[in-house]
Amino acid sequence: MPAENYAEIICVGNELLIGKTLNTNAHWLAKRITSLGLKVRRITVVGDDLEEIAAAVKESVKRKPCFIIVTGGLGPTFDDKTLEGVALGLNLKTRENEEALEMIKAKYEKYVAEGRMKEYEMTPHRIKMGRLPEGAKPLPNPVGTAPGVILKYGDVKMVMLPGVPEEMKSIFDESVAPMIREMAGNLTFYEVSLEVRKLPESELAPLIDVVMHDNPYVYIKSHPKAAEKIPHLELHFSTTSEDSKVARQRIGRALIQISEMIKKKGGVIKPVKI
Amino acid sequence: MPAENYAEIICVGNELLIGKTLNTNAHWLAKRITSLGLKVRRITVVGDDLEEIAAAVKESVKRKPCFIIVTGGLGPTFDDKTLEGVALGLNLKTRENEEALEMIKAKYEKYVAEGRMKEYEMTPHRIKMGRLPEGAKPLPNPVGTAPGVILKYGDVKMVMLPGVPEEMKSIFDESVAPMIREMAGNLTFYEVSLEVRKLPESELAPLIDVVMHDNPYVYIKSHPKAAEKIPHLELHFSTTSEDSKVARQRIGRALIQISEMIKKKGGVIKPVKI
Repeated sequence: MPAENYAEIICVGNELLIGKTLNTNAHWLAKRITSLGLKVRRITVVGDDLEEIAAAVKESVKRKPCFIIVTGGLGPTFDDKTLEGVALGLNLKTRENEEALEMIKAKYEKYVAEGRMKEYEMTPHRIKMGRLPEGAKPLPNPVGTAPGVILKYGDVKMVMLPGVPEEMKSIFDESVAPMIREMAGNLTFYEVSLEVRKLPESELAPLIDVVMHDNPYVYIKSHPKAAEKIPHLELHFSTTSEDSKVARQRIGRALIQISEMIKKKGGVIKPVKI
Repeated sequence: MPAENYAEIICVGNELLIGKTLNTNAHWLAKRITSLGLKVRRITVVGDDLEEIAAAVKESVKRKPCFIIVTGGLGPTFDDKTLEGVALGLNLKTRENEEALEMIKAKYEKYVAEGRMKEYEMTPHRIKMGRLPEGAKPLPNPVGTAPGVILKYGDVKMVMLPGVPEEMKSIFDESVAPMIREMAGNLTFYEVSLEVRKLPESELAPLIDVVMHDNPYVYIKSHPKAAEKIPHLELHFSTTSEDSKVARQRIGRALIQISEMIKKKGGVIKPVKI
């Protein structure tokens, strides 16, 4: 069965499960992948545990996304277990990858040349960052030490990125975004928001039904804002199309239709910048 | 097989998968559940889609957590599908729940009395919020309209909460936190952080190994900070114990041991407020 046209995100890290760290990585990746024209179907967060990582990878691969982006757990410490976990989940061995080790050495040589370190040795903890699942290739890390990793597993492209946001973003933009863009073709995601006041969500609900029925390519979602005396919500319109003009027209039509219906019911609207 | 002593979180909403909304709900819940003494094992995010919600619930129930907290998708609009999705995943029917409908009516009566609405009718969209999986019970929503929902499925307690953060938090604190506290017993989670400079993570890694080996109940995780010329990271220590004095002592011992090792290697340390 060929891979389907969507991505999944897996975030690895105990800090996410104890609520120490807000998952801005998943947020950034979801936004970027969506804007590149690919749909994100699921985000999974697991801890720094081999079996947990392996299980999440195995389950995700079964759903046949074309991309699985995994973040976190690529560094030198004992709890950086992502590469081993991915290998376990896919029943692969890990082995030292020459290209990855060269990338890591080059980084430490640079740190020594810059005076950030006095000397360096390829200790077991540093070699670990170059131990990849068999068949995987390293992706250059323009910011930090641990390389990103790409692994083709059947029709699924698995990409492993560090958890440090700057490193994750730079590897994604340099090496992953071009592949996703190619996969998604010319599809673009288009979105517009409207602020609605003085109309409770339960009265807006039937209007949304009508407008979505009349505009089958437009997805409309209401987001109630913090509870207030006067009802207040954001109405978000989105569509995906190969033609940005078509996308704008589609959303324009839906906007006009719902705006008139809202005004008739006594609601007040205002465009919102996204 | 009895439920195990951990929780899972499932967040429902397309806005999370398109990167429109940062998942602060999962962050808040993970922190609260952890501080109540229960471990969060997995966080799953799926879209407003019946099959996706049902699949996530089915998979989660199979892992036998004692609590599954689901947020989002309880409102009146067409894309609020959580209760139906949960029912589908567990092979249950949904039916109108008298108690839930009474809660919803009471809210609208209050809104009318306060002048926020002129009149109200129990429209199909409003009745939908009171259609629960069979066997489920509503939980009062002190802030908004849609009740929370609790459903016992074998040994698993499933709790469905709205996606609006204020509503989610208030139902959790009022109705869910006491149940989790009871389940977790007197366990408390204790954490301390240390800022480390001038020592790269790859040199810190073997020290962490030693200290974790010598302090088996303490979990130590290093969090590299934004790439800088001078290495800079946060070292996070955590433990769970029935006795807060024991917890503090455990972490204190590990802190002293690693601090001495870091200083010997030329690193600089400073306590961090969490």
